[in-house]
Amino acid sequence: MESPQEYAIGIDIGGTTTKFGIVNHRGDISNVGDLDTNKHTDVNLFVDELYREMKPAINAVGGIDSIKGIGLGAPNGNYYSGTIDYAPNLQWRGVIPIAKLITNKFNKPCTLTNDANAAAIGELMYGAARGMRDFIMITLGTGVGSGIVANGQLIYGHDGFAGELGHTIIRPGGRLHWGTGMKGSLETYASATGISITAKEILDERVNEKSLLRDIRHEKITSKNVCEAALKGDAIANEVFQFTGQILGEALANFVMFSSPEAIILFGGVIKAGKLLLDPTRASMEKNLLPIFQNKVKLLFSELKESDAAILGASALVWEIKPEALNAK
Amino acid sequence: MESPQEYAIGIDIGGTTTKFGIVNHRGDISNVGDLDTNKHTDVNLFVDELYREMKPAINAVGGIDSIKGIGLGAPNGNYYSGTIDYAPNLQWRGVIPIAKLITNKFNKPCTLTNDANAAAIGELMYGAARGMRDFIMITLGTGVGSGIVANGQLIYGHDGFAGELGHTIIRPGGRLHWGTGMKGSLETYASATGISITAKEILDERVNEKSLLRDIRHEKITSKNVCEAALKGDAIANEVFQFTGQILGEALANFVMFSSPEAIILFGGVIKAGKLLLDPTRASMEKNLLPIFQNKVKLLFSELKESDAAILGASALVWEIKPEALNAK
Repeated sequence: MESPQEYAIGIDIGGTTTKFGIVNHRGDISNVGDLDTNKHTDVNLFVDELYREMKPAINAVGGIDSIKGIGLGAPNGNYYSGTIDYAPNLQWRGVIPIAKLITNKFNKPCTLTNDANAAAIGELMYGAARGMRDFIMITLGTGVGSGIVANGQLIYGHDGFAGELGHTIIRPGGRLHWGTGMKGSLETYASATGISITAKEILDERVNEKSLLRDIRHEKITSKNVCEAALKGDAIANEVFQFTGQILGEALANFVMFSSPEAIILFGGVIKAGKLLLDPTRASMEKNLLPIFQNKVKLLFSELKESDAAILGASALVWEIKPEALNAK
Repeated sequence: MESPQEYAIGIDIGGTTTKFGIVNHRGDISNVGDLDTNKHTDVNLFVDELYREMKPAINAVGGIDSIKGIGLGAPNGNYYSGTIDYAPNLQWRGVIPIAKLITNKFNKPCTLTNDANAAAIGELMYGAARGMRDFIMITLGTGVGSGIVANGQLIYGHDGFAGELGHTIIRPGGRLHWGTGMKGSLETYASATGISITAKEILDERVNEKSLLRDIRHEKITSKNVCEAALKGDAIANEVFQFTGQILGEALANFVMFSSPEAIILFGGVIKAGKLLLDPTRASMEKNLLPIFQNKVKLLFSELKESDAAILGASALVWEIKPEALNAK
């Protein structure tokens, strides 16, 4: 007798750590674990080790026959091809056929997507976007990622690369991006990296103005420091969030006029700033919307625990395997 | 015995003229006609006259039993509600339940969408986007409209207002929009209106530089004049298209990083400028894309005759009545 395939494996490959867990239909995660993403320069050895590490977890839920499939989120993960393409933050170079390698090793179907899309799916199935057909997920971490759901489906685009909203230009000729060489992209302002740059710029401009941030060595200032200083009433730190919110709000208004979502959900380390970020962002977004869009779009924080979201989102790919978009290819 | 419902009615309500035609499955238009949109301030009288005007056309294809339904494109037409909402260029004020009025009068189901979405559907079924699942249609006329297709479906958003790309801000703090009061929206630069403003600005800046455009009374200069002058080698007129293409290309690059379309299709009066517009637009778009998107997106002109496109696109709504998005509401 076959066991019912009650579980999905969710795997999140991050720049430093790869996390995994076993997830049931209700979104309960069990048997979590992790391994060092960078331990093996050969991706085949990485997959071998992942399999060994996961074996006890799989056995704990009744063995591989209890597993329906494997969902995988990874930076630059391409849903259509199942490959990780030229990920700048991973040591595996070029095009890595990760979904195929995992499928072969585990003998279970593996579906890949990028990390921001995985978070969007997680939010759709278990988080703040439950029941929504149209929303945009913006991840504000070291970089700015995005996952777009319209008509109840993730938008992958013709090549699987849709949703690079962090790289849209919001200030033509503006701040130089450290990695892409583009000027004025959203990521250069609204990421944790961007927030620390803004803080340093303002500190440099106003050498005579006091700030708690001057107690920290200039090159060490992080967005977390800025947040802590702002919560203590530091004027410059508060201005950093005003500026960040203004630019983020302008970008969100443009996104709303593209896909008219019911909600925009913010996710990632930067949202720990809470109202410091949310209030100026909302004000700026509303100001830059046509009247037909005003006071309609919910601006929300993610409801998922950040450490769980990626595993949950990746595992959710298993339950929705073969969406309409994939069948057509 | 019932007649087979072989035909659809396509109606395009424009600011000045309402056009209609009868369309078969292959996209052949017959029995076209038109009437003055502004003849009746009472929309009920307009619908009555539309019905009288269309009667001979309907009889010519075998009567109303040969008609499957009616597709309607109109400015500010909302797909979900079937209403025209606060259209600034129509004399009917407020919210007009046009789809219901037409359904009742003709006793056939009527589906409404906005004019740019109708053009996108027309292009998808009969034009340059045949076989594509992901493309963006940009209409460059008096204003800038857009229709977005992703995963093979039009993106309507949660409220039916998705795709207002002409109002996205591409130059923060830039040119004031004559209607919306917003600054730096795409429409202020890339519409026919925007092109004539750019021409006047450059002429005013360089009072000593000769130009064929100086033969035309300043306030009368149109984008058509600019195009004609550019084709004759006029330096200022050419510069107008360089500038327009640069801004349009930047905007298109942002749109590509949103939905990663296979193609962007340009439509409307402004595309008569041909290579004058296309070359600088393409160069600017490519320059502003991340490498993973470069040299992949087709930038095309519409294949539909402009006078037919709206009727065709509207009629196509009939064949695809009740898409998945509508069922869910």
